[in-house]
Amino acid sequence: MTVLTIETQGPGLYEFTDRLHDLARGDGVMTVFVRHTSCSLLIQENADPDVQRDLKAFFDRLVPPSDAPPMRWITHTSEGPDDMPAHIKAAMLPVSLSIPVLSGRLALGTWQGVYLFEHRTRPHRREVAVAFTSTAA
Amino acid sequence: MTVLTIETQGPGLYEFTDRLHDLARGDGVMTVFVRHTSCSLLIQENADPDVQRDLKAFFDRLVPPSDAPPMRWITHTSEGPDDMPAHIKAAMLPVSLSIPVLSGRLALGTWQGVYLFEHRTRPHRREVAVAFTSTAA
Amino acid sequence: MTVLTIETQGPGLYEFTDRLHDLARGDGVMTVFVRHTSCSLLIQENADPDVQRDLKAFFDRLVPPSDAPPMRWITHTSEGPDDMPAHIKAAMLPVSLSIPVLSGRLALGTWQGVYLFEHRTRPHRREVAVAFTSTAA
Repeated sequence: MTVLTIETQGPGLYEFTDRLHDLARGDGVMTVFVRHTSCSLLIQENADPDVQRDLKAFFDRLVPPSDAPPMRWITHTSEGPDDMPAHIKAAMLPVSLSIPVLSGRLALGTWQGVYLFEHRTRPHRREVAVAFTSTAA
Repeated sequence: MTVLTIETQGPGLYEFTDRLHDLARGDGVMTVFVRHTSCSLLIQENADPDVQRDLKAFFDRLVPPSDAPPMRWITHTSEGPDDMPAHIKAAMLPVSLSIPVLSGRLALGTWQGVYLFEHRTRPHRREVAVAFTSTAA
Repeated sequence: MTVLTIETQGPGLYEFTDRLHDLARGDGVMTVFVRHTSCSLLIQENADPDVQRDLKAFFDRLVPPSDAPPMRWITHTSEGPDDMPAHIKAAMLPVSLSIPVLSGRLALGTWQGVYLFEHRTRPHRREVAVAFTSTAA
């Protein structure tokens, strides 16, 4: 198991596909797991940055801050208005990904990049655990 | 493969992290899989119970019962007003989790607990399949 | 690793459970991974087709086309009004599934079917990578 560290400066998508490619070897499955409950993993289009901006905007609209009128029913507000929405987004988006590996290469599609999706406002140091299991006979 | 049974009494989060810790050994990946289409798995904060209440409340607001006015378009109503919303929530939240294991310990973060998220009103007996694959050296 | 091809003709659920059963063998975990960012994988009820119709309808209402008034804020529109909503749905629904296998059989529940969930309007040729990792000691 390898633990990658990703420093985040506010909400948004942070790509780390290349760091996973560097860890891939042989034939098997790479498991990627984020050790937090207020950020997510995401595989999404790596071509047009508009896609990443629109994705973030959609989830911000679906889950507004807890001091916005439609979210005033939220009770867990002690860690700031961005905290409970971050937990909700982290529930809706992946905490683990399983990616097949063939001949030392991740079987990602042409347009697939792997991202950490930060949901908190303040800077965070995030840990992503990566494990490889082999399909060798 | 081990099958865990979790008895549920109505909607909400049922933690079973300790039962997974008991099954962890060696180095590898633990796969957790729920064998149903109207409940989910979820990794979420295990500290403040407000977080779990707010999570349940958010998804109840996003996917109200099928006899509530905004959901009257639903056609699959024969099994009760909580049934189709349960399938929708089960589509939005994880059916499988992959958690790295190092030296017999799950690589969960400090605040991460593993839950079964029951979406149905009536009591259910839920089955969760757990399999371990080793990261052979 | 095996790559399955699934031809889609418009949005909706395409079941391919049988093709996975054909690939299952021994004891371990089957990893299923979709190599695209505008369609998803989904495990859902395989009994009543109303469930699949209602699921599709829910996500179409939650994420309308980008030329519909509530979505006019979207910037990534160059590939058509169904493109950015497809990316959003693909972020909300699984890109990978991990299914335990026991004695050559997938440990699916009685009512669980495995689907490709197409979000784009035009026909597409979709690739699903399938890898098996063994639990044998």
